[in-house]
Amino acid sequence: MSQTDQPTACVLLIGNEILSGKTQDANLKFLGAELGKLGIKLVEARVIRDEHDMIIEHINECRAKYDYVFTTGGIGPTHDDITTESVARAFGVPLQVNDEAVDRLKRGTAELNAARLKMATVPAGASLIDNSISNAPGFKMDNVFVLAGIPSIARAMFAAAIAQLNVGSPIHSASIDVFAREGDIAEPLEHIANAHPDVEIGSYPFARDGRFGANLVVRGTQRELVEQVLDEIVAASVKMGAATKRPAGSDQR
Amino acid sequence: MSQTDQPTACVLLIGNEILSGKTQDANLKFLGAELGKLGIKLVEARVIRDEHDMIIEHINECRAKYDYVFTTGGIGPTHDDITTESVARAFGVPLQVNDEAVDRLKRGTAELNAARLKMATVPAGASLIDNSISNAPGFKMDNVFVLAGIPSIARAMFAAAIAQLNVGSPIHSASIDVFAREGDIAEPLEHIANAHPDVEIGSYPFARDGRFGANLVVRGTQRELVEQVLDEIVAASVKMGAATKRPAGSDQR
Repeated sequence: MSQTDQPTACVLLIGNEILSGKTQDANLKFLGAELGKLGIKLVEARVIRDEHDMIIEHINECRAKYDYVFTTGGIGPTHDDITTESVARAFGVPLQVNDEAVDRLKRGTAELNAARLKMATVPAGASLIDNSISNAPGFKMDNVFVLAGIPSIARAMFAAAIAQLNVGSPIHSASIDVFAREGDIAEPLEHIANAHPDVEIGSYPFARDGRFGANLVVRGTQRELVEQVLDEIVAASVKMGAATKRPAGSDQR
Repeated sequence: MSQTDQPTACVLLIGNEILSGKTQDANLKFLGAELGKLGIKLVEARVIRDEHDMIIEHINECRAKYDYVFTTGGIGPTHDDITTESVARAFGVPLQVNDEAVDRLKRGTAELNAARLKMATVPAGASLIDNSISNAPGFKMDNVFVLAGIPSIARAMFAAAIAQLNVGSPIHSASIDVFAREGDIAEPLEHIANAHPDVEIGSYPFARDGRFGANLVVRGTQRELVEQVLDEIVAASVKMGAATKRPAGSDQR
């Protein structure tokens, strides 16, 4: 892989509701796509429970292992919002009321009670991450970016945090639908993949309108190479008699 | 927590496409809900890349840590399907062609070439998991259940694997929408949560039809206690002047 000039990242989705099947996560797909555009390699994601020990353990493991950690969830005002406190404990620092965050929360119409003051409390040494949707900010502690769980707010906070990220070589991607069974494409595809270790080739089977096929995706930091490998896949498909179709927006990630 | 009579589980979603933002995962929510019904506690989930070392490391860590591990993805015929091989390496056993799996694959109309034979190859000692959708089976190796990534097939394989799981006390759940800001509900809610350590109470804010509110969810193994705590939440909401509404299907998970 010649993609080693990319910073690495891990996403921690924090919330019992994602593990209980109550809520469909909508943050990972967004963060994965956006990090890819920035040339940051999302190496893994973890979904963990709202439990102090578990959050602390994963934060500490992942912040040591990856250049960036992005958390979502658990920074609201209620008793089950324990991400901020857990991050402070992971870093071994106290929690502090942040005056700027207090000012922002005061802009709201709601009374700044003890529960809301919790949203203005961050680990000592953290810097705020703007929230353009509501008043409660996220925060950055070293290489850990703590975002809200609500997707619209997570997106706004991520946008506000981008300026603080070191970007890498952006990933280019191109894909083609091949109307053949995966088991028949597999062999020529493997030859192409082995010949081009500098790109990733993914094969995603589908059954659509009564036809079997696979969406073949080429990803890499070298745009011309990505296109060249896609051309090779098309040529191999034609040779085996399989129709191909370039999906709309296939030059996106 | 009195939910210690529940077996524990971890889900490993394997696939670059989920981390790149190409694909929205649709297996975690299903598995989380189904495991909850069986009284198995899904403690965490991880999304990892199609890379041997990474799959081996997480399989070995999670199978030691949890009663059950469920993987999805990476058991097809193409070069990027490396889950089966990685599981064999994690367990330190060779891969073997499974005669029963070969018979099943022969039922299909497609030629049983080398790529398809890969789908009949499992780690030595594994038992097959039926696939009622297509012919290629999943497999179980010790406490690791290896399922397909395609959601319809993952569901069918999970259904086929249920008989091999030790079940625990099923989780009961009840929820109520409270039309108040989370920052105002937080304090009474915390009192209720502290008084009932044997249930989990989650608060999930929403803005709907121009009104702020929170969906409050009570979960636990004791159905009567779950209902009692929900009643306490309703009473506290009424006391603070907030309207409540029991969502349709709220006695589901």
